[in-house]
Amino acid sequence: MRASDIVRKKRDAGELTREEIDFIIQGATSDTIPDYQLSAWLMAVFLRGMTSAELAALTDSMLHSGEVLDFSDLPGKKVDKHSTGGVGDKTSLVLAPVVAAASDARARLYVPMISGRGLGHSGGTLDKLESIPGFNVNLSLGEFRRVLEKCGCGLIGQTPEIAPADKKLYALRDVTSTVESPPLICASIMSKKLAEGIDALVLDVKTGDGAFMKKQADAEFLATLLVETGAQMGKKIVALITDMNQPLGRKVGNALEVEECIEVLRGGGPEDLRDLCLELSAWMFVLAERTKNVADGRALAREMIASGRARDTFREIIRLQGGDAGVVDDPSRLPHARHQARVHASRSDYLVRIHCEQVGVASMMLGGGREKKEDAIDPGVGLVLEKKVGDPVNEGDVLCTVHYNLESRLIPAMSLLNKCFEIGPNAAPDLPLVKKIIGPM
Amino acid sequence: MRASDIVRKKRDAGELTREEIDFIIQGATSDTIPDYQLSAWLMAVFLRGMTSAELAALTDSMLHSGEVLDFSDLPGKKVDKHSTGGVGDKTSLVLAPVVAAASDARARLYVPMISGRGLGHSGGTLDKLESIPGFNVNLSLGEFRRVLEKCGCGLIGQTPEIAPADKKLYALRDVTSTVESPPLICASIMSKKLAEGIDALVLDVKTGDGAFMKKQADAEFLATLLVETGAQMGKKIVALITDMNQPLGRKVGNALEVEECIEVLRGGGPEDLRDLCLELSAWMFVLAERTKNVADGRALAREMIASGRARDTFREIIRLQGGDAGVVDDPSRLPHARHQARVHASRSDYLVRIHCEQVGVASMMLGGGREKKEDAIDPGVGLVLEKKVGDPVNEGDVLCTVHYNLESRLIPAMSLLNKCFEIGPNAAPDLPLVKKIIGPM
Repeated sequence: MRASDIVRKKRDAGELTREEIDFIIQGATSDTIPDYQLSAWLMAVFLRGMTSAELAALTDSMLHSGEVLDFSDLPGKKVDKHSTGGVGDKTSLVLAPVVAAASDARARLYVPMISGRGLGHSGGTLDKLESIPGFNVNLSLGEFRRVLEKCGCGLIGQTPEIAPADKKLYALRDVTSTVESPPLICASIMSKKLAEGIDALVLDVKTGDGAFMKKQADAEFLATLLVETGAQMGKKIVALITDMNQPLGRKVGNALEVEECIEVLRGGGPEDLRDLCLELSAWMFVLAERTKNVADGRALAREMIASGRARDTFREIIRLQGGDAGVVDDPSRLPHARHQARVHASRSDYLVRIHCEQVGVASMMLGGGREKKEDAIDPGVGLVLEKKVGDPVNEGDVLCTVHYNLESRLIPAMSLLNKCFEIGPNAAPDLPLVKKIIGPM
Repeated sequence: MRASDIVRKKRDAGELTREEIDFIIQGATSDTIPDYQLSAWLMAVFLRGMTSAELAALTDSMLHSGEVLDFSDLPGKKVDKHSTGGVGDKTSLVLAPVVAAASDARARLYVPMISGRGLGHSGGTLDKLESIPGFNVNLSLGEFRRVLEKCGCGLIGQTPEIAPADKKLYALRDVTSTVESPPLICASIMSKKLAEGIDALVLDVKTGDGAFMKKQADAEFLATLLVETGAQMGKKIVALITDMNQPLGRKVGNALEVEECIEVLRGGGPEDLRDLCLELSAWMFVLAERTKNVADGRALAREMIASGRARDTFREIIRLQGGDAGVVDDPSRLPHARHQARVHASRSDYLVRIHCEQVGVASMMLGGGREKKEDAIDPGVGLVLEKKVGDPVNEGDVLCTVHYNLESRLIPAMSLLNKCFEIGPNAAPDLPLVKKIIGPM
């Protein structure tokens, strides 16, 4: 078998066999196929697409390029959530403790969450967690298992053992403009998530200006691929298509987002964030057979928050992963930026639109995200939206408070933020948070 | 400007600007763009194609990636021929001396031929020339100019100074299945040919089983691109679409093909080869304004052969390039294989088809060609077709004589050749040698 023949076959829109896909993935993992052949193959896949059978083979091959965690000895269902990412998207930090807290003797639940870092306008769960003083996301797989056993959830970063083929291919896709390919995205997500040894997965596929998939049709297409691939691999799976036309919640930035998650765990927080956390938790409960239906799931999630059990679990996760659990009761222990600036409304009317992606970019410019992988994160910076879409505004109102440390970073961020808020007559389209639910066919 | 953005633009079927194409070509030449980005770009070009404006920019950029020869001080027209390659395609060795011999005081002609080597089933002019004892194709550009001044033509191989971008890109295309792309082929051919500093170019675009372009429509498409690109760059240009459904002439192999060219220069040789040489010479004369029309061009070419002037010029080229000019009068001085084997007709009827590409592969297997670039050539081996398509055959007739040195190479070649000749009722399609002439629009 020769890599160039497989490239040729895909170039000519042929359907690759399992063996051909394995040859590519094993060659990528072992560095026996040179990068220039892999990138030609990636571009051919990008432009020619893949059939369901090819996609299932690719996902399985990438999954088995590394270690697949086996938690079958833990007595209960393992369930996780994956989001395609957005601005202010911080639900993982609420879901993990809420779902783990609901574990009981009849239906034990485990949430083994392996997350990523932020890049560009979208934040990453790991960066948010690391704003909690001492929190260690770099556990070994053995340590991860022990945390999971003790408190029902664990929150770590990718390890070199998990889906190494994805690491290799993603790095190449990033520099060859082959990122935005539904089958490549699907195989990348599913190979990493299924390596967590889970039984069930809830997908939060974002759509809108601040999402990876701007158009809802593209988000639905990707969601369908993800659900079909997961189902083919024997997993319980559902995808929620959710809105990302404005940031989720009011806070964007790492410590600021942890702070907002703690608000939700205390029974407060902004309505959209709270609602989405309840929806996603509810679906996790349903897929993990903890509740019979979504309504019961929502009620259970509310109960975990109201009773304080989710907060207890969050404290325990933080403690077990080396962090300062005191932040849950005293968020002032989180890092804060030294200065604040404000964006004001230039006239009175309604806030009709927030340029969501640009808000993410502004947060990145402040130091809250990375333009390049190697950039360092400034955990305290970010911004707080004082108004959201549909809110009435008066001239001079504060639309957004900017938390910053360096003047040199504030200036470009402010010039962007000054253009992010559109004020007009109250013609803002209704933005339902959950736009569609896609289950297995 | 970033390579990945240019890859993205072409991926999305955008039209690249001259600056973007220059950025890619200069990056390829200077090794500042990594191979993996170039190969993703090549695959995107392969699958998305190029507009005429992009193609002209690509050709010009590749042409100027290296030295462009300037023969403007030589008092006359510089004209060349390029063939897309086939089996037994040896016309260059006849055309160069015929056209150069016709140079006279009123219309001086120069043929500065820079040729390639064979790969796979198709032979290369350089390999054929090197079967002439002592012949040196590796002249410096200065030596090339002196030979051209003295005898009106010169026959050399690619030098590192000529179109280095093409060398780089071709090597990558070869291993990434991006060879068969009309715009990439066109830019590759034209950038090298126009670097010869020519005024006019006749293209021999082969089509049929033994050609690169099996389908005539593909050959015509490529020919049109070549002609349009050449015309845009201010060159006189014409393309002849010619048949490659059976080998050209009767001899396939390096020294054997030189021998057959000498037959033609002596006024003999097989009809198809002789006719094609006359046609191509005639068009070279017309484009170089040596004759008013093609009929006059044919007559002039015939005269160069009949008078012996083309032979004189061929002797002089060989002598000036260090070779044994005695081969022109005594072809037995060329290398010969030690042994011969024969392919016999299994029944009586007509020869209706010769699997042309497979005949080329058989010659390669004998040592007459290269499977891989680094393979060595055995100059004496090859085969002689004793029958051509349309000929009546009797059971037991020799269809083909095989010249070989090693039994181990004969065996696989014979097993292929035994399947190359189809005998049947005389239903062979007529194979006109010149199928179409494509001039500038």
